[in-house]
Amino acid sequence: MDISFSLDELTALVAPSRIAGAGAAAAITGLASLAEARPGDLSFLGNPKYTPEVATTAASVVLLPPDYTGAPRPGQVFLFVADPSRMLAAVCARIEERLWPRPAPGIHPTALIDPAAKLGANLYIGPYCIIEAGAVIGDNTILEAYCHIGRDARIGHDNWFKPRATVSDYCVTGDRVKLFVGAVVGGDGFGFETVDGAHRKIPQIGNVVLEDDVEVGANSTIDRARFAVTRIGAGTKIDNLVQIGHNCQTGRHCILVSQSGMAGSTILEDYVMLGGQAGLAGHLRIGRGARIAAQCGVLSDIPAGAIMFDSPALPLITAKKIAVLRKRLPDLFKRVKSIEKHLGIEETPPTHS
Amino acid sequence: MDISFSLDELTALVAPSRIAGAGAAAAITGLASLAEARPGDLSFLGNPKYTPEVATTAASVVLLPPDYTGAPRPGQVFLFVADPSRMLAAVCARIEERLWPRPAPGIHPTALIDPAAKLGANLYIGPYCIIEAGAVIGDNTILEAYCHIGRDARIGHDNWFKPRATVSDYCVTGDRVKLFVGAVVGGDGFGFETVDGAHRKIPQIGNVVLEDDVEVGANSTIDRARFAVTRIGAGTKIDNLVQIGHNCQTGRHCILVSQSGMAGSTILEDYVMLGGQAGLAGHLRIGRGARIAAQCGVLSDIPAGAIMFDSPALPLITAKKIAVLRKRLPDLFKRVKSIEKHLGIEETPPTHS
Amino acid sequence: MDISFSLDELTALVAPSRIAGAGAAAAITGLASLAEARPGDLSFLGNPKYTPEVATTAASVVLLPPDYTGAPRPGQVFLFVADPSRMLAAVCARIEERLWPRPAPGIHPTALIDPAAKLGANLYIGPYCIIEAGAVIGDNTILEAYCHIGRDARIGHDNWFKPRATVSDYCVTGDRVKLFVGAVVGGDGFGFETVDGAHRKIPQIGNVVLEDDVEVGANSTIDRARFAVTRIGAGTKIDNLVQIGHNCQTGRHCILVSQSGMAGSTILEDYVMLGGQAGLAGHLRIGRGARIAAQCGVLSDIPAGAIMFDSPALPLITAKKIAVLRKRLPDLFKRVKSIEKHLGIEETPPTHS
Repeated sequence: MDISFSLDELTALVAPSRIAGAGAAAAITGLASLAEARPGDLSFLGNPKYTPEVATTAASVVLLPPDYTGAPRPGQVFLFVADPSRMLAAVCARIEERLWPRPAPGIHPTALIDPAAKLGANLYIGPYCIIEAGAVIGDNTILEAYCHIGRDARIGHDNWFKPRATVSDYCVTGDRVKLFVGAVVGGDGFGFETVDGAHRKIPQIGNVVLEDDVEVGANSTIDRARFAVTRIGAGTKIDNLVQIGHNCQTGRHCILVSQSGMAGSTILEDYVMLGGQAGLAGHLRIGRGARIAAQCGVLSDIPAGAIMFDSPALPLITAKKIAVLRKRLPDLFKRVKSIEKHLGIEETPPTHS
Repeated sequence: MDISFSLDELTALVAPSRIAGAGAAAAITGLASLAEARPGDLSFLGNPKYTPEVATTAASVVLLPPDYTGAPRPGQVFLFVADPSRMLAAVCARIEERLWPRPAPGIHPTALIDPAAKLGANLYIGPYCIIEAGAVIGDNTILEAYCHIGRDARIGHDNWFKPRATVSDYCVTGDRVKLFVGAVVGGDGFGFETVDGAHRKIPQIGNVVLEDDVEVGANSTIDRARFAVTRIGAGTKIDNLVQIGHNCQTGRHCILVSQSGMAGSTILEDYVMLGGQAGLAGHLRIGRGARIAAQCGVLSDIPAGAIMFDSPALPLITAKKIAVLRKRLPDLFKRVKSIEKHLGIEETPPTHS
Repeated sequence: MDISFSLDELTALVAPSRIAGAGAAAAITGLASLAEARPGDLSFLGNPKYTPEVATTAASVVLLPPDYTGAPRPGQVFLFVADPSRMLAAVCARIEERLWPRPAPGIHPTALIDPAAKLGANLYIGPYCIIEAGAVIGDNTILEAYCHIGRDARIGHDNWFKPRATVSDYCVTGDRVKLFVGAVVGGDGFGFETVDGAHRKIPQIGNVVLEDDVEVGANSTIDRARFAVTRIGAGTKIDNLVQIGHNCQTGRHCILVSQSGMAGSTILEDYVMLGGQAGLAGHLRIGRGARIAAQCGVLSDIPAGAIMFDSPALPLITAKKIAVLRKRLPDLFKRVKSIEKHLGIEETPPTHS
């Protein structure tokens, strides 16, 4: 990756209150932690516990808090700023803009756009995209290669879809929505009734609505509703390989970590967090701000603010106690046995179940 | 979504034994549950426990059982039918046909079809599809955009593949098979032998056969056999993000819920159900009609009809008992401790393992 | 599938020390286990426990160890070889070459290759591939249909990407890397900071490096680093639907089975194995050669060589003991109750947690 930042540019961006040292490499060409930095890298002291590493870092430029007292080595530059972590973030954001500049508006000649689609202003539509009849695309939206927008789908303003994202027929996105590679919005819900021994599909005639600022990770799948809507609330962020069943609802600002899954019609209130590989049964309500740990399996409603763990789910504090005690089970069995011996009680022969 | 149904159409479709009320909206424009319905919606009473909601629903038209005794409000219409749920399903199926009409037969000019492929009658082949040499496509089959049919693959009649479905070389589908967006049929099995410390791929030269009426969900993956066949039995329905390893076999009419997985060579007999995120080790046999709960982990054969829960799997009844008892573990430890105290027995110091 | 091997070809390939029988089918047309073989099939005796099946197999040709003493039936041929399993593998490899011959070098006219990309010698670039500006493709690499190589990505020599594989901007692959259908290398890491109640994306400006001989399964996702590198060590094999978070590192020759997942910044040393659906929390180190069982949930560092099981993870031996004892919990509760009765101690009322 080609990151190249002159010291002047960097200084202009982070506006240090003080500069120490000189002669750093003409250009910063990378970013790294203090321990891993090599000459040419920019590093930073974001957490006091790493203070000793500043003296030995090979970084050419280091962002430091004003109270850091050491001096740079020859050829090293220290930039003193009020909040090194935030300034690093500003640098990262600038680098991000360079690495991923907005593509210039335009429509690739291989994009297939139905004449009955309505296109906003200032769009980028990449190669081999397909936009079906009746679809509406908001202003300033970017569709990278192979994106597929179904019939009568409505895409908001300032969306950015990475290659191969799919928004199926009749689905809707708000503004500033991001879809990553291979995300599938609006597959059929998985519902069947069994008639004469065969599973007959229940029509899935609802849609999916992604509200403003939603992100959906690579190869994640969000199913359309049986009827009405599968809705993802504003600001909710969904990681890779997540499954969201038909008629689910998430509140605003939820976080769904990779490989988690929600069965049909389950509702997350605002600010719920699902850890990786967590699974929720159908038709549940998870209260505001609840945190469902990784691999947790939830089979009943969860109150607001609860922290759940284990499968089936337990409150964190109970789960922690049990996790400790289950390791002591072999001892407990021995203790009960010696009590029985002590008392001359015959052990009940175990019933097999 | 544009659902529009006149009351006349609706009446013709559901053939009510009696109609009450009049003056409903000229057209039904949505479907919703009694509680969530708004004016313009059709709703229904499918379960007696919701009977009180009929009196307060805002739905413009309600499907009701013949024995419902209330009267419609002004501007509301009640249609009395023998089985409101089934009539709703009929309405949904009609709506589905309108929302997803069969595309007219035809081959998009951007579809790349090898001259050595054999195409049936009455096909729709969408934009940017690729059909390789030797592939055979049955009559009335629909391939939406970007579908990829590998060399010498054989696709049956009346299949419907959503965009980006892949059937790799030499794989076979029966009739009426549905693949959803991004489904991958026929990836390599995951088999290696370790030679001099490096994992060397074992050739995976079998194929995948999907029998009649199989459905495979979005981004699910079914691996080809090491040799011979990975087979999905007729009528089996597979949800999104499911993994099926090489040489697996499913019986007829199995249900595999989202994110479940089967390791290599495992066999499901007919009517097996895998819950979400359930996982099966390799080389197992799961008996007819067994139900493997969500997140269950199965390490050994399961008899027909069993209901399994937990990881590693236990029969449901045992698992339920244990789930209750594990919450009482802290108490049990205390009780044993007080017995020891009572008896003046020293607690054995826990051995660490 | 059309496997066709004359007996002469087969004999030339496996070089038997002795041949018994004659008149086998002119051509071998399939491979199967002894029990499942039909006339026309090749089978083999790879494990002494199957010796009795040789006498009854319907296979036309059987690979046997030199010490097998039975005689072929009429129309059946026995080929005696030192190591039947290895010879079978040789036959499979030959079949694999026939089933998947290297495509002849060439660039499909529908491939979109930026003039600022650099192409090696002897490439195959399939239909509807896209190669962005600055990308570099090594010699002898094969990109099947719809592959997408991002800006400034660098692909090594002798890579083979199946259809729809994605290597995003700035990512790097070594030599002999294989990507399967829908694999996504270089999606954004999933990192946010919460500002005024909204999750703000932390820029993800690192990349992904896949070292030599890595394989990534269908629809798996590997995220780019926040900064620096997400690195997959040489010879590591990744199955389908696996998730690898930003800044993870795997050592050399790891095995990650289907649906396993690694949260951000976790490190696998060499030869680690993750079972199916196993999950690792972030910022952990898993020691060399450790084996993490299927569905195992790991929340802390794991020493080299450990075998872990259950969620949260326990050493296998402990987990096994506990798995047995938990089934005996109902008995234990009864035993403690009868001790209490015996002693006339009141059961403590359970505290609810």
